[in-house]
Amino acid sequence: MLPDVQTLKPDIPVNLSKVGARGIKKLVMVTKGKGRPAILISTFDVFVDLKPTRKGINLSRSFEAIDEVIESLTAKPVRWIEELNLKIVETLLERHEYANKAEVYMVSELILRKRTPVSNYQTQEVVNVLCEASKDRTGDKKVFIGVEVSGITACPCAQELVKAKAAEKLLAEGFSEEDVKKVLSAVPVATHNQRGKATVKVQITDGFKVSIEQLIDIAKAGMSYDIYELLKREDELAVVEGAHSNPVFVEDSVRIMAKTAVEMLKDAPDEIVVFFRQENEESIHQHNVMAERVATIGELRKELYG
Amino acid sequence: MLPDVQTLKPDIPVNLSKVGARGIKKLVMVTKGKGRPAILISTFDVFVDLKPTRKGINLSRSFEAIDEVIESLTAKPVRWIEELNLKIVETLLERHEYANKAEVYMVSELILRKRTPVSNYQTQEVVNVLCEASKDRTGDKKVFIGVEVSGITACPCAQELVKAKAAEKLLAEGFSEEDVKKVLSAVPVATHNQRGKATVKVQITDGFKVSIEQLIDIAKAGMSYDIYELLKREDELAVVEGAHSNPVFVEDSVRIMAKTAVEMLKDAPDEIVVFFRQENEESIHQHNVMAERVATIGELRKELYG
Amino acid sequence: MLPDVQTLKPDIPVNLSKVGARGIKKLVMVTKGKGRPAILISTFDVFVDLKPTRKGINLSRSFEAIDEVIESLTAKPVRWIEELNLKIVETLLERHEYANKAEVYMVSELILRKRTPVSNYQTQEVVNVLCEASKDRTGDKKVFIGVEVSGITACPCAQELVKAKAAEKLLAEGFSEEDVKKVLSAVPVATHNQRGKATVKVQITDGFKVSIEQLIDIAKAGMSYDIYELLKREDELAVVEGAHSNPVFVEDSVRIMAKTAVEMLKDAPDEIVVFFRQENEESIHQHNVMAERVATIGELRKELYG
Amino acid sequence: MLPDVQTLKPDIPVNLSKVGARGIKKLVMVTKGKGRPAILISTFDVFVDLKPTRKGINLSRSFEAIDEVIESLTAKPVRWIEELNLKIVETLLERHEYANKAEVYMVSELILRKRTPVSNYQTQEVVNVLCEASKDRTGDKKVFIGVEVSGITACPCAQELVKAKAAEKLLAEGFSEEDVKKVLSAVPVATHNQRGKATVKVQITDGFKVSIEQLIDIAKAGMSYDIYELLKREDELAVVEGAHSNPVFVEDSVRIMAKTAVEMLKDAPDEIVVFFRQENEESIHQHNVMAERVATIGELRKELYG
Repeated sequence: MLPDVQTLKPDIPVNLSKVGARGIKKLVMVTKGKGRPAILISTFDVFVDLKPTRKGINLSRSFEAIDEVIESLTAKPVRWIEELNLKIVETLLERHEYANKAEVYMVSELILRKRTPVSNYQTQEVVNVLCEASKDRTGDKKVFIGVEVSGITACPCAQELVKAKAAEKLLAEGFSEEDVKKVLSAVPVATHNQRGKATVKVQITDGFKVSIEQLIDIAKAGMSYDIYELLKREDELAVVEGAHSNPVFVEDSVRIMAKTAVEMLKDAPDEIVVFFRQENEESIHQHNVMAERVATIGELRKELYG
Repeated sequence: MLPDVQTLKPDIPVNLSKVGARGIKKLVMVTKGKGRPAILISTFDVFVDLKPTRKGINLSRSFEAIDEVIESLTAKPVRWIEELNLKIVETLLERHEYANKAEVYMVSELILRKRTPVSNYQTQEVVNVLCEASKDRTGDKKVFIGVEVSGITACPCAQELVKAKAAEKLLAEGFSEEDVKKVLSAVPVATHNQRGKATVKVQITDGFKVSIEQLIDIAKAGMSYDIYELLKREDELAVVEGAHSNPVFVEDSVRIMAKTAVEMLKDAPDEIVVFFRQENEESIHQHNVMAERVATIGELRKELYG
Repeated sequence: MLPDVQTLKPDIPVNLSKVGARGIKKLVMVTKGKGRPAILISTFDVFVDLKPTRKGINLSRSFEAIDEVIESLTAKPVRWIEELNLKIVETLLERHEYANKAEVYMVSELILRKRTPVSNYQTQEVVNVLCEASKDRTGDKKVFIGVEVSGITACPCAQELVKAKAAEKLLAEGFSEEDVKKVLSAVPVATHNQRGKATVKVQITDGFKVSIEQLIDIAKAGMSYDIYELLKREDELAVVEGAHSNPVFVEDSVRIMAKTAVEMLKDAPDEIVVFFRQENEESIHQHNVMAERVATIGELRKELYG
Repeated sequence: MLPDVQTLKPDIPVNLSKVGARGIKKLVMVTKGKGRPAILISTFDVFVDLKPTRKGINLSRSFEAIDEVIESLTAKPVRWIEELNLKIVETLLERHEYANKAEVYMVSELILRKRTPVSNYQTQEVVNVLCEASKDRTGDKKVFIGVEVSGITACPCAQELVKAKAAEKLLAEGFSEEDVKKVLSAVPVATHNQRGKATVKVQITDGFKVSIEQLIDIAKAGMSYDIYELLKREDELAVVEGAHSNPVFVEDSVRIMAKTAVEMLKDAPDEIVVFFRQENEESIHQHNVMAERVATIGELRKELYG
């Protein structure tokens, strides 16, 4: 019989909040209603808590839990990614009978097909899909599902500065105030713009669900315009014009995401927690600019509609 | 006069939890009592909150706040890194008069001199120094200081497995039980070992301080042994023997850090929050193994001494 | 008609070695003979050269080239990953009629199934698959295919140091020279060990091919032992014992890979270029240790067999 | 006496191109003529080759070589960063008497002070300084020094597209051709812009040197405009206007760097090798766009002046 050091009592009777593994990569197949299944390379972090009654956890059980769930759910592909993760925490609790709580954090790279805005060419886009799930012995559970998307953001402040200066110049060259107004609404005026990254996470309950598609729509609502891997000349024009007619601060992006979520998730109970983050890779700085909001849907409803 | 778009009222009256910048790199000089000052390349993330009364923050003020504090404190070098960060949040609150709360997160690479364990050669070590500080208009503040260090951890479970199997073999070859015992205490028995990373963060208050040196001692206490950039043969022997006579799980590492902190920080008030994390880059897996504890010093004292 | 700035003559008549895009992610499906197809998320870098006759390349054509090839080859899945990449450079040359040379660099995460060494559980492993292909207008082409794998390496030097010291101790405790010899061959003796990463790249020609499976076998030959995401106690024992009975320096790893390649690739022409790299994430240092060899198969044959 | 496994003959008589260590971090102090010394946290990769006469290199000697050189040169600070690196390869050759060739690759983060373009505020900028040096027993040596800088690049193609469309609209609204011309030269017209990264490396010989300052000037010459960590409103306007009046493709950036290098390095011998790379983090794509040129100064002179 091989010795089992983990089951010994530890010398130091201290509780542990989390014990587990980070960076476990697995192939997951997800089907969304009809259509061919999406293939995800998913990276999982899994944890359980530990009382001072044991020196260590049986780590291999954590991998068995994930593998077992993935294998059993791959036979008939997962419809909602959160089901997969909830099943994982439940299996973790079963397997680690000494644990009181289990947690899983998942990130997946999802490659989606989409079409270019004008030329209508087919192209692909990478979206990160996130899921966080935890459950304890009392049955209390918390599940979040989220996405990280890319887009272009154009700065409204610099654009106003450039417009003001251009107006001065045009007036000095003899254009009338009215003509200047016409010109500045006809010509897309320069500003700095950059790759932005939006993160949205929404809490899920037994009675309330949200789809990856909805999350992507919310996350992209805060951008100046969508971006594409393939752009023909007419598409590039559309992206640049579109972005410059819809300039946003990181602050605006988060507020727009918040408003879009409230409007889109009408059946979400007030206590649902939501998280929005916009981070812009500023073209005029070496650092990034970021804004964030964490709130319940109820709080946002009150702020928006009083 | 240039237009100032940030001061406008936003269309969407939603509060923002955080608005700011990530990844601002600065050169900081810190002196610790006597001795020549340590030079840090520090990376700062700075944020303030924002009410629906303004469209955006004046971002350039955040950089001014950092620069001003760093410049003014560089003249007479900072004695405690947390003073620098607390000063930054206070200046952020002054400059962003519309904000209710300011936060800063700092990471610095600190290069320390140390000596090899046997040959006594001089060598260098990289330690990450962390600081998190926040303050609001009511004067409430929260400051954490921390470190991230590297070390070697050897696995006790695999070592017991190897020992049990070796004992069997030796008995089969005719060695007595007593001789086997002697052998297994004389010969450092193989197990898997790996680079581990320990993170310790401790809350600081007006009346309670902790030094970088103390934090490094706590973080290293949980490792099987210290590691070195330069090792002569006699040093390498000492590290391997030392690590194998002190095998630890990630769980052990965190518990030892917790106990060491409680013993070392005797004057810490009960409500001080502490955080410990050990992450091992397992040599037998592609994934990492991790354990964590967040608690107040008071909670740990109760668990340890009842 | 939209203007086409790229076709203008540049002001500065300087040749460019490479113009293109980095980090294009695509879903690729590869079938290897029978069995269900492997799914790869592949990241492509694609380049062409450019003469002073044009200001810029038509970048969108590079994406069309990749997309077209992937789409057309997905209908009937690719049998050899190098065919996909060669097809891409050929399509790049067609689409960029002003270019003389095209290059592609691909990295894919491949998730393979494998079984634990003793308990025979099913588990998964991540392998990076690499491909580099270039072709010019004269028809000259160069194609490499490669893999990056993980494994455990145990250090022979530290193990000999520990053995020598242990032998001294045992002799001092009264064991005979013969018994000491027996003991040290029965007991797996401690050393430092760590996650290692091996990279193998082999040139491919019209007449000479190598499979991903062969490349993985060559890369793993240089490790002390294989590693696994899931290990039951008996497996962990096997990995640790196996690694400690086969200690290797980075130098050994590269030499073993070179020898294994020469033995395995008997039909490779002498002029085939091969590349081997071993990098160990040393558990006793903060830095990594690395060895590399680039040579033709012919050179290696001469060094090995004279 | 401790055993010395490295000096044994290897079982497999294969040459190794490189054996050494990656990621050794050191604090280096560099003085440039007058003024206070710059502090660098430098990361070194060091290698020697190895013949089949030895199983392994004495790795600790590589660290001693670096430490010794740094310590001895820190007493009187280094004037040229390439001297430090050349000294390191020479010491590597001395210490590894069995090696025929030694190589070092260094990257340092250098934090420079600079002033904002209009408001003249003081701010800081991060520049990566690179050095590569190799030397063999025949005395042959090769030394490169380089920099990596950030800047903003604005796309000329999209700007022409936007201009053409805007001109159409203005003509349709009744503006004359002449007025449209005036407007489009007065109003900075929108395009996509982004953070760009330029890399320049120049070979150094006994008779020919280049300074970090010159390298930074060459690298920045290819950008649309410089970027800043701190920008007041008037500065932001200057950056956006400046960038939009100087739009460049990655191809242009590389060609401008090449021309600037040729003009600036008049005393460089024809055989000096130079390397230029521009990589733009496209705001309209998820991927980056890149151009590169490697050539001798002589080749560039011929292309530019015939």
